[in-house]
Amino acid sequence: MSWEKGERIYDGKGKRVYALKGHNDVLLQEFKNQLTAFNAVKVSELDGKGELNCLITTAIFKFLGEKHIPTHFVEQTSTTSWVTKKLDMIPLEVVVRNILAGSTAKKFAIEEGTPLEKPLVEFYYKKDELNDPFISDEQALMMKAAQSQKDLDTLKSYALAVNKALIEFFHKCGIKLVDFKLEFGVSMDGQIMLGDEISPDSCRLWDEITNEKLDKDRFRRDLGQVKEKYQEVWTRIQKEWSSYV
Amino acid sequence: MSWEKGERIYDGKGKRVYALKGHNDVLLQEFKNQLTAFNAVKVSELDGKGELNCLITTAIFKFLGEKHIPTHFVEQTSTTSWVTKKLDMIPLEVVVRNILAGSTAKKFAIEEGTPLEKPLVEFYYKKDELNDPFISDEQALMMKAAQSQKDLDTLKSYALAVNKALIEFFHKCGIKLVDFKLEFGVSMDGQIMLGDEISPDSCRLWDEITNEKLDKDRFRRDLGQVKEKYQEVWTRIQKEWSSYV
Repeated sequence: MSWEKGERIYDGKGKRVYALKGHNDVLLQEFKNQLTAFNAVKVSELDGKGELNCLITTAIFKFLGEKHIPTHFVEQTSTTSWVTKKLDMIPLEVVVRNILAGSTAKKFAIEEGTPLEKPLVEFYYKKDELNDPFISDEQALMMKAAQSQKDLDTLKSYALAVNKALIEFFHKCGIKLVDFKLEFGVSMDGQIMLGDEISPDSCRLWDEITNEKLDKDRFRRDLGQVKEKYQEVWTRIQKEWSSYV
Repeated sequence: MSWEKGERIYDGKGKRVYALKGHNDVLLQEFKNQLTAFNAVKVSELDGKGELNCLITTAIFKFLGEKHIPTHFVEQTSTTSWVTKKLDMIPLEVVVRNILAGSTAKKFAIEEGTPLEKPLVEFYYKKDELNDPFISDEQALMMKAAQSQKDLDTLKSYALAVNKALIEFFHKCGIKLVDFKLEFGVSMDGQIMLGDEISPDSCRLWDEITNEKLDKDRFRRDLGQVKEKYQEVWTRIQKEWSSYV
């Protein structure tokens, strides 16, 4: 299908979003080279980062589609852009953790790297002015971030299904899936589906043997070799999951 | 029944707890005059505060007992002490809010005093070293603060039942129940019941007409007349609920 780019709708931290002329239910998303952390307090540009994230995300969303998880993915249009369904986004960041790291490890004073007995699903309220606070189901309903407990339960069950699929996906690449963040939205026909992206910007990925970090923590924590490690993730995916690249 | 005080088991922020000789399943609790706020960063002594809290708490626990809410209350032994069942405490502070105030108003940048469409139940993980962080059901289970989702649901349903009863109790006294904190424990025969206390230390209570604060916020926010307002609450309870005093 050929698409004609329309007006810019939104300029986010990681992507620019455009309308597509003659289509009301889809969007064009271009992946940016900008890297941000700590609610955009720390910002940088990294040549080629947008391309790597687009390639990795696309492979993952194709894989999740085959696992029967509803996503917004329609078609990849270049190495830095894709067409997605237009979603009415749910203002929650849905985090799944298999191994404790980051804010939750700190909150409970538990050592980073501690494996969890079972995956932990968390919601954060997506609101830059409030610094995306951690939120319970009851608070999410109070803030009308979701319409019902049933919708929150749907988010949790999709998040756990994505987790199961991604553990398999990354394990084949010799990578431990420590944690990741998802965003969901509601399609024009009322279906909850996975939106946003899944990339080293939104996951913690550790080498299975060395525990080396292959994700945005390299940028957050000034570990260097950010692009090299994103490239490493992509190289492994190309090798192991050639049918999705 | 006559009780003989045994060894001191615990010296908390608001109460001292003693064993009772010859009894394994009950405790003696003495209410202290100490006032603390912000995880005991702010501390003060207030003559007669322990007595007022004990009198108010006792009246409320008697009232809740008649509303068929299981509590640890056994018997009042003086104006500053009571005997309670021994509970294995669940390390959660269960907060119920009818009107937004305090940390949750701040978290969502909502004006203090905003009424909620329905009561909001929140859990905080009781751990001084961690500053009693706000916690979701999933995190509470991860930290083994409760044994099961069923137990968490029991806490929520008791908390809402207490809220319904207390709204009636305080309304008769011309007082708005803004929010309050409960603590629960498990009795020696395995039943979840309400422990701790319910007093102006653990509730936000506003005069129905003037919105004047009649609770620990007078201490937290240096509004003065702390003891006078606790006394005011007790005077109104004595007048309206004489059968429980």
